[in-house]
Amino acid sequence: MSGSTYGKLFTVTTWGESHGKGIGVVVDGCPAGLELNEADIQRYLDRRKPGQSRYTTQRSEADAVQILSGVFEGKTTGTPISLVVFNTDQRSHDYGELATCYRPGHADYTFDAKYGFRDYRGGGRSSGRETIGRVAAGAIAAKLLATLGIDIHAYATAIGPVTIDRNAFDLAESLNNPLGMPDAAAATAAQEYLELCLKNQDSCGGIIECTINGMPAGIGDPVFDKLDANLAKSMLSIGSIKGFEIGDGFAAATSTGSTNNDAFILTDGSITKATNHAGGTLGGISDGSPVVFRVAVKPTPSISQPQQTVNCSGEAIELSIKGRHDPIIVPRAIVVVECMAAITTLDLLLTNMSAKLEHLKQIYDR
Amino acid sequence: MSGSTYGKLFTVTTWGESHGKGIGVVVDGCPAGLELNEADIQRYLDRRKPGQSRYTTQRSEADAVQILSGVFEGKTTGTPISLVVFNTDQRSHDYGELATCYRPGHADYTFDAKYGFRDYRGGGRSSGRETIGRVAAGAIAAKLLATLGIDIHAYATAIGPVTIDRNAFDLAESLNNPLGMPDAAAATAAQEYLELCLKNQDSCGGIIECTINGMPAGIGDPVFDKLDANLAKSMLSIGSIKGFEIGDGFAAATSTGSTNNDAFILTDGSITKATNHAGGTLGGISDGSPVVFRVAVKPTPSISQPQQTVNCSGEAIELSIKGRHDPIIVPRAIVVVECMAAITTLDLLLTNMSAKLEHLKQIYDR
Amino acid sequence: MSGSTYGKLFTVTTWGESHGKGIGVVVDGCPAGLELNEADIQRYLDRRKPGQSRYTTQRSEADAVQILSGVFEGKTTGTPISLVVFNTDQRSHDYGELATCYRPGHADYTFDAKYGFRDYRGGGRSSGRETIGRVAAGAIAAKLLATLGIDIHAYATAIGPVTIDRNAFDLAESLNNPLGMPDAAAATAAQEYLELCLKNQDSCGGIIECTINGMPAGIGDPVFDKLDANLAKSMLSIGSIKGFEIGDGFAAATSTGSTNNDAFILTDGSITKATNHAGGTLGGISDGSPVVFRVAVKPTPSISQPQQTVNCSGEAIELSIKGRHDPIIVPRAIVVVECMAAITTLDLLLTNMSAKLEHLKQIYDR
Amino acid sequence: MSGSTYGKLFTVTTWGESHGKGIGVVVDGCPAGLELNEADIQRYLDRRKPGQSRYTTQRSEADAVQILSGVFEGKTTGTPISLVVFNTDQRSHDYGELATCYRPGHADYTFDAKYGFRDYRGGGRSSGRETIGRVAAGAIAAKLLATLGIDIHAYATAIGPVTIDRNAFDLAESLNNPLGMPDAAAATAAQEYLELCLKNQDSCGGIIECTINGMPAGIGDPVFDKLDANLAKSMLSIGSIKGFEIGDGFAAATSTGSTNNDAFILTDGSITKATNHAGGTLGGISDGSPVVFRVAVKPTPSISQPQQTVNCSGEAIELSIKGRHDPIIVPRAIVVVECMAAITTLDLLLTNMSAKLEHLKQIYDR
Repeated sequence: MSGSTYGKLFTVTTWGESHGKGIGVVVDGCPAGLELNEADIQRYLDRRKPGQSRYTTQRSEADAVQILSGVFEGKTTGTPISLVVFNTDQRSHDYGELATCYRPGHADYTFDAKYGFRDYRGGGRSSGRETIGRVAAGAIAAKLLATLGIDIHAYATAIGPVTIDRNAFDLAESLNNPLGMPDAAAATAAQEYLELCLKNQDSCGGIIECTINGMPAGIGDPVFDKLDANLAKSMLSIGSIKGFEIGDGFAAATSTGSTNNDAFILTDGSITKATNHAGGTLGGISDGSPVVFRVAVKPTPSISQPQQTVNCSGEAIELSIKGRHDPIIVPRAIVVVECMAAITTLDLLLTNMSAKLEHLKQIYDR
Repeated sequence: MSGSTYGKLFTVTTWGESHGKGIGVVVDGCPAGLELNEADIQRYLDRRKPGQSRYTTQRSEADAVQILSGVFEGKTTGTPISLVVFNTDQRSHDYGELATCYRPGHADYTFDAKYGFRDYRGGGRSSGRETIGRVAAGAIAAKLLATLGIDIHAYATAIGPVTIDRNAFDLAESLNNPLGMPDAAAATAAQEYLELCLKNQDSCGGIIECTINGMPAGIGDPVFDKLDANLAKSMLSIGSIKGFEIGDGFAAATSTGSTNNDAFILTDGSITKATNHAGGTLGGISDGSPVVFRVAVKPTPSISQPQQTVNCSGEAIELSIKGRHDPIIVPRAIVVVECMAAITTLDLLLTNMSAKLEHLKQIYDR
Repeated sequence: MSGSTYGKLFTVTTWGESHGKGIGVVVDGCPAGLELNEADIQRYLDRRKPGQSRYTTQRSEADAVQILSGVFEGKTTGTPISLVVFNTDQRSHDYGELATCYRPGHADYTFDAKYGFRDYRGGGRSSGRETIGRVAAGAIAAKLLATLGIDIHAYATAIGPVTIDRNAFDLAESLNNPLGMPDAAAATAAQEYLELCLKNQDSCGGIIECTINGMPAGIGDPVFDKLDANLAKSMLSIGSIKGFEIGDGFAAATSTGSTNNDAFILTDGSITKATNHAGGTLGGISDGSPVVFRVAVKPTPSISQPQQTVNCSGEAIELSIKGRHDPIIVPRAIVVVECMAAITTLDLLLTNMSAKLEHLKQIYDR
Repeated sequence: MSGSTYGKLFTVTTWGESHGKGIGVVVDGCPAGLELNEADIQRYLDRRKPGQSRYTTQRSEADAVQILSGVFEGKTTGTPISLVVFNTDQRSHDYGELATCYRPGHADYTFDAKYGFRDYRGGGRSSGRETIGRVAAGAIAAKLLATLGIDIHAYATAIGPVTIDRNAFDLAESLNNPLGMPDAAAATAAQEYLELCLKNQDSCGGIIECTINGMPAGIGDPVFDKLDANLAKSMLSIGSIKGFEIGDGFAAATSTGSTNNDAFILTDGSITKATNHAGGTLGGISDGSPVVFRVAVKPTPSISQPQQTVNCSGEAIELSIKGRHDPIIVPRAIVVVECMAAITTLDLLLTNMSAKLEHLKQIYDR
């Protein structure tokens, strides 16, 4: 694996640049027999499509996905599923300054440092369009998990300084407003704040929370491949994400053991927890409670106000970024978070199948 | 890889249970020619050794490491380095209730859910003693990195509610006080807070920050194996860590693009950044600034006050945990954070060697 | 990795079915800065293209490759190179019996056993067309290796009972005759034998030899990732290959130590070997001599004479296979062998870069 | 993974040098619940122990294995199983010439080329003693496979020019004679041939065959991780093995399709094959027939007659190797072949668990 592949058994290999011929993904290790068609995947891609509100880039791409392999007569065959979205809106223009300058907050400089040069068109491999492959793969993982009773939902809990009221939490509402907040009043306030940002030629960040319901206890490996460790990696692998916390997260650092410990209790004869400070994982293994984690999203680095920077020739310059950019990354990143969580969860579910000799006997019983 | 191995080229495989025969690690992929002896490793292990202050468990183990392979005539040979610490203080006693109850905040229940049963002695594989292997491996990575001019330091920035004063920051001080805080006054206040916790038969958490100095620009892969993604995984893979943030982290979520972007500037003709909100990484690749990240550590779950819980037979019980436990995990986790950071950094440095054709030509030039 | 990905640093992920939309490959980990265009790849694909002689299937496909990502301004960028060949000659017909019967010597039955069902069109994933992805990826590896002075050539040393005369060995000739034999007389005799096979509605096998020239000493890992072990895997992963041997191979089993040992000698002050019974590898690591190995190719299983077999309903049937099939696999497999050897060699060359601390110092020297 | 780890889910990491402190292995990913004790492993190690006949080295080591982790109350816990054999017979002597010369047929020169220097004591990491780790791990895999009805047996079919008579094949006999041949008459003839070799201060090679009985159909991945490809890699990863063939192997190259194809037939209502030219695998996936493969073993390179070679200073020298060496590697390699086959088979069995959605539903059914 060389950096564009994720997962041990359910492996996802993304490829493609923002302004190249297309963006795609190869999903290997999907169990055979899952009903799947392009609409299942398009539904997820449509959630990250640009141009859906005035807070997302106005680039208009249909982002229509094609399944090129791995599905036969409506079902996955167990062989690699190749998915592609051809780019259709690559404006052929002069990249001029962007080809030679190092935009603050972007990967231009670091790509040059690593590879010696870069595809400077629209961010190249570092563009948000790379997430198309993740979302397409995640849609498959999510569909498979749903057949096992596992559902994943992400939503924004903060946009800039505006945070949701937990007492007003309404998951359905998060699909109604353009910011994905599960609280209509907060969404309104956040839109006001965003208008201010736009007026200031500025951008802002936010926080996305994700909940995995229906997770069976016992998933995740106890040492390096902890459920939370793998989720953390998959989240920080999304561009612009600067932090990850599970359960009470950073707040646990100021808590005490007597408060932070979740007592085990019996509910209808089953073992459950009285609280969920842990966020659904103990020792890196799921405990049967919902898995709850949050990620911090930085403000969009592309802003139209003038910025000081340096070009490839090592000269100080002033830069004003033109073009179509999201003033906030959060709304379109929500489905990416959900999809990376689905991929991570499914991969651990598959590796967990061999945890017990008893499981082998179930499957290879003759 | 099955969960106890970490790394692609510099791979670390830990093994061992708290009360088994020993704890160890196999380090594979260490470049040949590094001078190494047991003292290099012992120095790091001594920093995580129990019994160093009244805030760490009183279990007294020398934790003396032996190098069993991979070093010849004082230098690494390029073959696996096997390191072992034999357990010497496994008290042979009746684990009684602990064998059958599910301690809140511990992995007892989740191990049973995953594997069907567990080694219940002292936390088994989930014990903090598993980190001996990580520290031993990390000591090697750190020594190698130092030869390339890369230094890694971790320290506590918060213990419970007590946080350091950034203006009083003194790295050397962090090695002077038992809590690893780079601020003597904060360390004193934190000790007062800990006395209160002890009196209340309670425990507390904290925050550890880690800085990687001397990191060349260009390290880390742009998609799934981002420098920050791999650091996040390695950190969350440490027991009791509930959150990770890089640079401004969660604070970036409330910032704006114009503030959060770090301007590129020229310093003595070299490209640097005016600020470091990013924490040393752009697009997942190091940018030449110091890499700075923080982790949240939860309060020790083993507390001596009575707790409600459930046993393996599904009966509600009251539990009082006896024995030797740290009232706070932070001080001994500092070196673990440092070591996991070293392992992660070195692994990415090795995989980065093949980023450019030019590098191949340098090495295979004939 | 889930079975369709090969390689640790230079990773190759193939996808696609014989009669699906296309066949492709994602190459990740190719160093940045290699000049590459579609013609470089097409040249190799043309060598495995069907319809080139009366001994290869008459299916006529241009097999035109497209580079979808990873190349910018004529050079590799270090990011994934996605390559696709769209299928154009999928005859839309009734697969009838082939959809439900288990062809002898084919993977129909085993796919059903593993996955529960299969894409029965033209062999699906098990078709020889899967090798398009390998050849496309191998063309890149071969081009890169050539820039380092490493050249790989494969050719047929036997077709059915006809073997080449080592004294008449002429590498150039192997590109002149349709069977890829480096001996014109043997090629003529082999063609006579093949005519007999065709007349008998039968097929035959053969042996392919591959030589890697210019391999530096020191490549390959000493334990599981031996150069010869990785070559063996990559060769046996090609459909229809039933055996692998390096150097004297099976003949070494009847030799003696005094004969089989290759004496080290000095040639112009450099250490070389007087003979090459070892085939260029000692202890799994290249020794500076040419790497020489052979593979055994089984006869094409699709023959038109009637065969006894069983169908999916568990009924005995008689089967006569119609359609376009190669009477011998060898000629088109030659380039596949060459390409898998190139991929394997390059991958080991990349992982070898971190073998010595000295190499790190060369690259990270500041 | 850096060359000393093998396997995707059942992973085996070996460490140790011939004359270092010990040899060991960490087995990760062994399913929990397998009954296991040291005797289970010792039984296999005793089969590769030196000093068992006049045809194996006279070095006398008990090679007593210790389980250091991963087993609790007599059963595997699912966590890493660390096994160690401490070296006890490292004669402390002057390695003199061996420290500086390059023995023909050995890895001395290639280690120096790769790493810059080497542990020259007794072959270091390249010693046959490295296989202790493989055998210890394979003993666990074999025990687990046996609980699923899968049995693996290896034996010698040729020693130098002496081959077994297939009509006299008697598996039990292979455990009776010191050469592991399943034919008493051949074993006697082979011993005569070996006496001649000893008299000539020479050595010889041979062929080992391995049969896996009880293998369910459907195991192995169709592309790179074919059952036969993984077996080939695991076999060529054993020192001194120069060739691998499955089923008819190299003989298939001279066969015809009509002969080589195995007809599917019905046996008691089940689908089986009339013949087994394929050796139990079709398209890389097991077909329910016994898996049968052979490996070629080269003659022991350490012979006592004088040989020409070169030393580290680049001077031509004459070398006479003293010390304890096997005149033939085959007898002790048999159990290594068996164990690597067990490891490979179990690993593919575990990864196969997620091949079908139906399997997931069986295990995660609630």
